[in-house]
Amino acid sequence: MPSFRCFSSSATRLLKLGDSLKLTRIFSNEDVIEYAKITSDYNPVHLDSESARNAGFEDQLVHGMLVASLFPQIISSHCPGAIYASQSLQFKVPIYIGEEIFGEMQLFSLRRMKNRYLAKFKTSCFKHGDLLALDGEAVAILPSSAVAQVDPLG
Amino acid sequence: MPSFRCFSSSATRLLKLGDSLKLTRIFSNEDVIEYAKITSDYNPVHLDSESARNAGFEDQLVHGMLVASLFPQIISSHCPGAIYASQSLQFKVPIYIGEEIFGEMQLFSLRRMKNRYLAKFKTSCFKHGDLLALDGEAVAILPSSAVAQVDPLG
Repeated sequence: MPSFRCFSSSATRLLKLGDSLKLTRIFSNEDVIEYAKITSDYNPVHLDSESARNAGFEDQLVHGMLVASLFPQIISSHCPGAIYASQSLQFKVPIYIGEEIFGEMQLFSLRRMKNRYLAKFKTSCFKHGDLLALDGEAVAILPSSAVAQVDPLG
Repeated sequence: MPSFRCFSSSATRLLKLGDSLKLTRIFSNEDVIEYAKITSDYNPVHLDSESARNAGFEDQLVHGMLVASLFPQIISSHCPGAIYASQSLQFKVPIYIGEEIFGEMQLFSLRRMKNRYLAKFKTSCFKHGDLLALDGEAVAILPSSAVAQVDPLG
């Protein structure tokens, strides 16, 4: 089973502007191998230490899109039924197998759409405490039951 | 094993501006279940038909970030050792389990960086032939051995 921990900084599970949803995780070699099998992404920088070092890295990298999966995981664990609309991803620093990473999504915009909400999040992954490894923004459609407070201007 | 097919529109495996790298794939229910286990993304719209229909969809959705994994797969199968720098993703239309999807990356910018190249791609996934389901752009660092022709102005 994956090693992860998910928690919200809000006292309840209802989201409001400014809330941060957070999760820590360590991706194992087994995670990377299984991910490679599903996606057929067998880039040797993920699967072979020597290839990774020859490419200038310290060791085997976790697939970037596997790291990015933390964001929909955070959303779906907090808001089951949420639908992703967009995500931007800037890979700033390599993330290696076995490193503890800290994913964070901060809600900065909410707009009502009938019985749902269009929510915009700043999305970040850190390692070594505060070293920004993955940066971007996400837009998701949330069920109204997940939202506590709305800014009608988005 | 996943059902996929990867090919390049270029006569050789060396990339040049304007080239398109393409791949077709069908994600199975087993793929989605295995992906959920690795990522711990158990959003019911992916795993349960009734939940997906209650959320307004025809059936179970493939995780968006699993669909997006086609792009690094295309890059890594064509250019082993390539490193992803960024990706934007706009999820336009749901992709359901069992649907054939067609991923395409078109190289529109190349810039030399010492012995590597910074390459920018338009990234698209289609279903039902020409229905755009996933849109965006990617930036990757490619080994010089993968590149045939360079526009020094990027």
